[in-house]
Amino acid sequence: MAGKQYTEEYRIPYFETDIKGELTLASLVNVLILASEHQLNDLNVGEETMHSLNLGWVVTQYQMTINRMPKVDEKVRIVTEAESYNRYFCYRNFWLYDEAGNECVFVQSIFVMMSYETRSMVPVVPEIMAPFESMAIKGSKRFPRIKKIDSEKASQKEYRVRYFDIDGNQHVNNVHYFEWMLDALDYDFLMDHRVTSVNIRYGHEIQYGQMTQSQVEQVMVDDIMTTRHKVAVDDLSAAEAEIAWTKR
Amino acid sequence: MAGKQYTEEYRIPYFETDIKGELTLASLVNVLILASEHQLNDLNVGEETMHSLNLGWVVTQYQMTINRMPKVDEKVRIVTEAESYNRYFCYRNFWLYDEAGNECVFVQSIFVMMSYETRSMVPVVPEIMAPFESMAIKGSKRFPRIKKIDSEKASQKEYRVRYFDIDGNQHVNNVHYFEWMLDALDYDFLMDHRVTSVNIRYGHEIQYGQMTQSQVEQVMVDDIMTTRHKVAVDDLSAAEAEIAWTKR
Repeated sequence: MAGKQYTEEYRIPYFETDIKGELTLASLVNVLILASEHQLNDLNVGEETMHSLNLGWVVTQYQMTINRMPKVDEKVRIVTEAESYNRYFCYRNFWLYDEAGNECVFVQSIFVMMSYETRSMVPVVPEIMAPFESMAIKGSKRFPRIKKIDSEKASQKEYRVRYFDIDGNQHVNNVHYFEWMLDALDYDFLMDHRVTSVNIRYGHEIQYGQMTQSQVEQVMVDDIMTTRHKVAVDDLSAAEAEIAWTKR
Repeated sequence: MAGKQYTEEYRIPYFETDIKGELTLASLVNVLILASEHQLNDLNVGEETMHSLNLGWVVTQYQMTINRMPKVDEKVRIVTEAESYNRYFCYRNFWLYDEAGNECVFVQSIFVMMSYETRSMVPVVPEIMAPFESMAIKGSKRFPRIKKIDSEKASQKEYRVRYFDIDGNQHVNNVHYFEWMLDALDYDFLMDHRVTSVNIRYGHEIQYGQMTQSQVEQVMVDDIMTTRHKVAVDDLSAAEAEIAWTKR
């Protein structure tokens, strides 16, 4: 048993696409998370329930495989399931298929439950998990390790956190990290390449008005063009990522 | 006759809302324009037709009245009509209603047709307008004048144009101007006030990598808290706006 699946159709609007008319990474995560929220609501363990327990969901890691990003106006099908969980970590999968049924994107993720009272992680509440029919597991699911950036070789751009970067949780919504990470790359590189995989791990939260440093290093890993990223506020790491690319 | 009306339902996703869970100005314009694109497609005068004529639509002005911004998860109804047109200008209206039928937002707009070949305005093509059943008029529809900002009294923030600010037309999508205009205001001001009207006029386009200056001045106009805005790239004005606010 690997979790009850939830499916919804979605049509990619122009404003969620980039200069090439392809869904952006930030919007990809937005629409996947929206689908998972709809599943939570359907199963009556949505935000209301979480609020009544003073709990919130926080993502700690995404591992994405991107065969191709859907294009503007494309009709896609999003599927998600809360695959399994242990004492602290919940593993949720997402798929995005095109109209012909091809898998465009596959995302594995790790979520934790956070107490709004203590602002720290709490053990997973089994009652919340029950309706998902997720598998209770003992061990941890392995995600690929994200190698540290070599700051000596990295280039950097700075971003001041703006009012519209802040979401209802009063901190920077983590999809903005993708924009800072990718924008730190050269325009020509972004035009000539497309993302084939992303592995991102989140750390400290970021607040309004802070200055963030988005560092990036380009390396070849087994003949694959790879970029390593770190978004930091001074000494605090907010997110680290490894992104694989292919030439267009 | 004031143009054939097109209606669609829309549900506000969390990622189109701000720290207060209300639809942002940028997302408001995104979803209204999306509805108008759907009307164009329905009437077979969509992007394909425009491309075959080497023409594109460019907005030059919005005049918005905002009774209240819809909140996250709210179901709304969007209505749009191409009200009328003269030799060069097309006047399109948009309404956004809540589920109870209250008018949340009313937007009047001016669009022109641009030739991709010459990058300049061309007379409106009547064949394109015919299916909208818009009124052909002789004169111009009056929009309120936007008073010039007093640069001496204005404060300013700078924004470097990012990769994801650029849309399929290879320039900055004009909804980003709202983010730059509002972000130039203080956090406390934004938290304590809400927008009741916006009048914005677009000028020069902005390109990737340029630095924009977002200037803002706060004034009282007939006892109404008003902000005047200018987004410029050095000497070129990209947009000017006047926004009215009320205390929350």
